[in-house]
Amino acid sequence: MIPSDLEAKILKVKRQDHIPLYVCATAGTTVYGAFDPLDNIADICEKYGLWMHVDAAWGGGLLMSRKHSFKLNGIERANSVTWNPHKLMGVPLQCSAFLVCEKNLLQACNQMRAGYLFQPDKQYDTTYDTGDKTIQCGRHVDVFKLWLMWKAKGTRGFEILINKFLELAEYLYKELNSRENFELVFDAEPELTNVCFWYIPPNLRRISNGPEREKLLHQVAPKIKARMIEEGMTMVSYQPHGDKVNFFRMVFSNPATRKSDVDFLLEEIERLGKDL
Amino acid sequence: MIPSDLEAKILKVKRQDHIPLYVCATAGTTVYGAFDPLDNIADICEKYGLWMHVDAAWGGGLLMSRKHSFKLNGIERANSVTWNPHKLMGVPLQCSAFLVCEKNLLQACNQMRAGYLFQPDKQYDTTYDTGDKTIQCGRHVDVFKLWLMWKAKGTRGFEILINKFLELAEYLYKELNSRENFELVFDAEPELTNVCFWYIPPNLRRISNGPEREKLLHQVAPKIKARMIEEGMTMVSYQPHGDKVNFFRMVFSNPATRKSDVDFLLEEIERLGKDL
Repeated sequence: MIPSDLEAKILKVKRQDHIPLYVCATAGTTVYGAFDPLDNIADICEKYGLWMHVDAAWGGGLLMSRKHSFKLNGIERANSVTWNPHKLMGVPLQCSAFLVCEKNLLQACNQMRAGYLFQPDKQYDTTYDTGDKTIQCGRHVDVFKLWLMWKAKGTRGFEILINKFLELAEYLYKELNSRENFELVFDAEPELTNVCFWYIPPNLRRISNGPEREKLLHQVAPKIKARMIEEGMTMVSYQPHGDKVNFFRMVFSNPATRKSDVDFLLEEIERLGKDL
Repeated sequence: MIPSDLEAKILKVKRQDHIPLYVCATAGTTVYGAFDPLDNIADICEKYGLWMHVDAAWGGGLLMSRKHSFKLNGIERANSVTWNPHKLMGVPLQCSAFLVCEKNLLQACNQMRAGYLFQPDKQYDTTYDTGDKTIQCGRHVDVFKLWLMWKAKGTRGFEILINKFLELAEYLYKELNSRENFELVFDAEPELTNVCFWYIPPNLRRISNGPEREKLLHQVAPKIKARMIEEGMTMVSYQPHGDKVNFFRMVFSNPATRKSDVDFLLEEIERLGKDL
């Protein structure tokens, strides 16, 4: 999100007598792992009285790292935040948090006062009961998994994990840069653990840039992935995005991953794709 | 739901130029465990072209029992059904099914065609991919728990379980009928495992029916439950409902329960409540 473009769009809809209400910034996009400039967006939201939500489902885990948390600077000014510890932090599926600054808001929005479920005449302080504050009712206590992991690993344990993922992403980025059969989707160091790239088989390297090469390149990643799944050794996502044809998206979120696994992945892609 | 009343209400809103859309019948209400007459409701829905939904979250498990499944006769005529195997059938939280008759409807309603998540160019038949048919996306495969249980117990195993729960409910109903310190909320055999009743302490039995007795009776169940929790031996829900003051709602859904546990529960309630 480009803050000046956001402000221009807010002004445009206001001139059309619409009422802008809510801005959703992203901290860690799904494909590129990009971070919106939260502090600048917060300035604009404050200026126009808009609700600021931050979707930190994927990137929220960086808050555990003193080295990388600066990428989320400004998140403390948001009105609400989504954060999925089941993504970067490795809590088993599913564990998703929706955090709201304003106290009692979730209760005011969601409470159904279902007298047959929530008894007010209990022996303890019922303000601790969460049932009537959520959209759903009888549900698995997923946050317990996060609590247990946090107790076991500590904030420092999560920090070590997150830093390691980012180091692996940087290692992959440098490896891709140094190998002639690979091309990066972006020529910039990764902000999160996402590293997006193409593998260019030798036959394709002989074709000059243009629609013909793009069309052939679009088919490379799906074919390599199908072969990966058949062999059962590696698996990595791919997708097209905007005007970019199918590219691999490597994401690090397994604490057992080593640099040698990164080397192995690249060698496997070359081995499986060299005849394409 | 009283079918003649439903039809009267449909005709009333139609006369007001509103368009009725949807009827939600219940198979197993939360408090009383009551079943709506689904076949009669289906007749009315067909007559007026209304979507018929059956909330069988709690009572759907009776379909596993040849003895009790008749209570859901007509459910096969519904357009959609909710069924929570995590309730009566004992699948660990959470396992909820939303079933729709019309093929491809969920896909047409929910699909986002998010190209960065759902790749069409896979090596297998992607019509088996469920991700783009649901409201949610990355989620726990909860239905696997049901599948495993079904493989282990068989339909016959579930039938034995369900029949046992209903037998326990009938046993409790008869016990309550025979004990002078208890009063049933309904004088009819339970349709599901819910049995609703009051405990009347000796002091209260001396007061004649009226607002004073109702006010005191309303406080009995919460006090007994608080004592139950302190002692850590038994736990049973209570709630008021409509014009009825707080009553106990015993529900059977634990396969380890025996008739001696029912006796123990009633003795505990008497022991903990006799001085109230």
